[in-house]
Amino acid sequence: MYLTRALHRSLQQQPDEVVTIFRGRHRTYSEFCDRVARLAGALQALGMKSGDRVGILALNSDRYLECAMAAWWGGGVLNPVNVRWSVAEVVYSLDDCDTNILVIDDQFLPMAEGIRANAKRALSLIHAGDGDAPVDMLSFEQLIAEARPVPDAQRGGEDLAIVMYTGGTTGYPKGVMQTHGTLWTGCIQRMADTPPLHGGKVLHTNPFFHIASMSRVLNHFLAGEVHVIMPSFEPREMLETIEREHITELALVPTMIQMLISHPDFDKYDLGSVRRLGYGASAISAAVLEQTMERLPGVEFSHSYGLTESMIVTTNPPENHGPTARAQGLHLSAGRAGIGVELRIVDADGDEVPRGTVGEVVVRSAGVTPGYWNLSEDTARSLRDGWLHTGDGAYMDQHGYLFIVDRIKDMIVSGGENVYSAEVENVVGRHPAVAMNAVIGVPHSKWGEAVHAVVVLKSGMQATEDEIRAHCREHIAAYKCPKTVEFRQALPLSGAGKVLKRDLRVPHWDGKSREVK
Amino acid sequence: MYLTRALHRSLQQQPDEVVTIFRGRHRTYSEFCDRVARLAGALQALGMKSGDRVGILALNSDRYLECAMAAWWGGGVLNPVNVRWSVAEVVYSLDDCDTNILVIDDQFLPMAEGIRANAKRALSLIHAGDGDAPVDMLSFEQLIAEARPVPDAQRGGEDLAIVMYTGGTTGYPKGVMQTHGTLWTGCIQRMADTPPLHGGKVLHTNPFFHIASMSRVLNHFLAGEVHVIMPSFEPREMLETIEREHITELALVPTMIQMLISHPDFDKYDLGSVRRLGYGASAISAAVLEQTMERLPGVEFSHSYGLTESMIVTTNPPENHGPTARAQGLHLSAGRAGIGVELRIVDADGDEVPRGTVGEVVVRSAGVTPGYWNLSEDTARSLRDGWLHTGDGAYMDQHGYLFIVDRIKDMIVSGGENVYSAEVENVVGRHPAVAMNAVIGVPHSKWGEAVHAVVVLKSGMQATEDEIRAHCREHIAAYKCPKTVEFRQALPLSGAGKVLKRDLRVPHWDGKSREVK
Repeated sequence: MYLTRALHRSLQQQPDEVVTIFRGRHRTYSEFCDRVARLAGALQALGMKSGDRVGILALNSDRYLECAMAAWWGGGVLNPVNVRWSVAEVVYSLDDCDTNILVIDDQFLPMAEGIRANAKRALSLIHAGDGDAPVDMLSFEQLIAEARPVPDAQRGGEDLAIVMYTGGTTGYPKGVMQTHGTLWTGCIQRMADTPPLHGGKVLHTNPFFHIASMSRVLNHFLAGEVHVIMPSFEPREMLETIEREHITELALVPTMIQMLISHPDFDKYDLGSVRRLGYGASAISAAVLEQTMERLPGVEFSHSYGLTESMIVTTNPPENHGPTARAQGLHLSAGRAGIGVELRIVDADGDEVPRGTVGEVVVRSAGVTPGYWNLSEDTARSLRDGWLHTGDGAYMDQHGYLFIVDRIKDMIVSGGENVYSAEVENVVGRHPAVAMNAVIGVPHSKWGEAVHAVVVLKSGMQATEDEIRAHCREHIAAYKCPKTVEFRQALPLSGAGKVLKRDLRVPHWDGKSREVK
Repeated sequence: MYLTRALHRSLQQQPDEVVTIFRGRHRTYSEFCDRVARLAGALQALGMKSGDRVGILALNSDRYLECAMAAWWGGGVLNPVNVRWSVAEVVYSLDDCDTNILVIDDQFLPMAEGIRANAKRALSLIHAGDGDAPVDMLSFEQLIAEARPVPDAQRGGEDLAIVMYTGGTTGYPKGVMQTHGTLWTGCIQRMADTPPLHGGKVLHTNPFFHIASMSRVLNHFLAGEVHVIMPSFEPREMLETIEREHITELALVPTMIQMLISHPDFDKYDLGSVRRLGYGASAISAAVLEQTMERLPGVEFSHSYGLTESMIVTTNPPENHGPTARAQGLHLSAGRAGIGVELRIVDADGDEVPRGTVGEVVVRSAGVTPGYWNLSEDTARSLRDGWLHTGDGAYMDQHGYLFIVDRIKDMIVSGGENVYSAEVENVVGRHPAVAMNAVIGVPHSKWGEAVHAVVVLKSGMQATEDEIRAHCREHIAAYKCPKTVEFRQALPLSGAGKVLKRDLRVPHWDGKSREVK
């Protein structure tokens, strides 16, 4: 159970097959492994010892995957940096993680000086780009050219493999640890559910610093397939790439799916090679699904739900995306517990609730994190008796299908009724004048909490509080409708683009206690 | 990673679906789990403590699987007994394994008294049958009816799950240990290669005391599928069962495949539901394969190679069974290393040999045994630096395909040339008068070893030493042909039906040293 084992297997079976394609550059397994073994040597020469972290701040590329594999090959730990963060956030995470080697690509060179100046530790910066490295940085390519290949350190099992930072909506980012064993097992049990397409060619567009994308990377390495890599999501480039490279498998979030299928040039491209489309982050609406299935006939859709802390938990398989399943609403489920995964919905005491009742999703699996980096209290709060408490509110139906309703802490209890902010936000968002909105609970003398909507209007559009409330009453029960509506120019967002609801709550709750279930 | 987790998942998702079908008896997951939890309670009441062994000496049945799951659910370890053994061998293995609970079915009742009388420990015998239990035995059904269900002990990971006895051709049987973790991982990584058929219905005919059959059982439990169980292989019952139960998946050995397709009533049955046929134990001849593919059109064939000590090592997938692959001889390969498996061919010093060169197969994987029960020397000999030394002689081609040639110890070195006894035996066996034969190396002053054949003729048939040698020279190089041929009435066989070559060698080698590579 060590992640580089996949490379050894491919070297034995298909050394001359292509493993990565990035902007026209093809690498075979034997080239890739040679580069990995050399880069690992270079990292060791820079001082990387067993278990030391190597950071990477870069858009997706073939070099990103070489860097990840080289860190592991050399005995180190990968610390992928969130590419949406500010200098201060990047520095916070590098300091927190004691990372002192950072690989950085051209896109982020402008942040380099700020990062170096503010980081507590002296950083070795490695420039991963095609041109010359800046004078004060090492060159990724030169390191590879000059280093001697080292043997695979073969760290594995409970050895740490990766520290990924999440959060930002609830305080400081936390470093989620995954070991070789948890990553490997999380991937392999997912593959037992959703087997590799033999001869598959996957297109990576989601950022590699996310577990969703990184775990797909590992799946496809385990299966010995071809990785076609785009620096980031861009619909036209994606359409072109699918056609040119005969891509078999895509992974997207519903918003991207919509952007792709509604692209004006969609019909100009031959996308007939695509056999699978995996999506996540949220459920997909019946309308988008229907439209996508029409435009991409023969493609299998599946929805996966998971956390950085857990790897994939549930999968809603292709058969729940057809017309019959859609009529039953099954396409809105996140799916059922995968092979090897235990899943429960529990109340505040940790007891399982009856089917159909909303509670917190808890998970136990060999893919669950051993904890947060240097945060034993957060670890103890999240992991109890081996069960990861996800903070997600959901119910389960009679057949074990999971339906996510809200983050537990965003649920509102008004007059004894549960109100799911996500549901109300969906309705408020359908008002034609609303650009963005967030729904929170605010203290109320009679109802305990009252539903409160914070709304940003579309530029040049108007709507009153009464109009928003009237719109809501057309679609949802009265107790779910906002009692009050507040208009703002913008919502406070985290680095990852999530609304910072705690900032919205502060003025209402300051000095009062809000019990988070 | 505990084996009963598969039951909890199915209970959550499909409690009312059928899990076992045996001679018309159907059990749903919820019935099955209730019986398992009760039987586990009964075993604990009989004194089974955490880690204690529960033996079972029985033909395949639904109760066999209940017994296995109950042992694990109650915290115990399964000790499946070889059904082909004599009383003395059974007693040896029960004594060696410190097993003091034995489940026994009607078939083996005649052995019960002998086992009880000779076993070192006082045995609790549980009769697993439909009728009344003999007076001095407990009744499986009564125990279940009267016991209270206990909670799942959830032993897992490195906890011992099973002790399976192998060998007999090289000395006393050895207890191969597998933990929850090795069994679970061995299965799951196999499933990533060969994914479950959703809605699959597997027919078990191979004895559950073999790892090949037991690991299939676990695969299908993990996938939540239906187990249709036959007590043992019987071609007509198999044909009937496939038709009646709409079986999707079969596992056989090549001899059984031939018996099945050449059955006089083959054409009377509708076998159209079968989608997969997995085989093992030996490669399949092109002739049998061709004939089978004609008679079972649309069925996917795959060959798996593995040991009790390793779980599945390689799989030769369906695409290597078609006409083009057959022309290249690829159907004769045991396949390539599966996902998660490391495979090498090494010389006597443990160094990897070039592709195409014969050496010993060594394996490293999360499915490899932690060792032999109470045999630390054998364990140290078999497991070196984590690599399991299989004792199998094989070569690997340029694409990583494995071709097994012989057991290493059965290879003969004659005049500096390697001769594979298995190859010579195949040729000798094609002589029309030969019923059985075994080929061994005997000491020779000039050649070091000489090829020697021991032949049993078919009843009423005749052949001379010269005729056998002339026959061989038509098919293989002169140095591979037997220098001497010896005729016997019978060959010495092990309990598992394997020829005991060491017994054949003794009169030739007694007092001389034969270095086993």
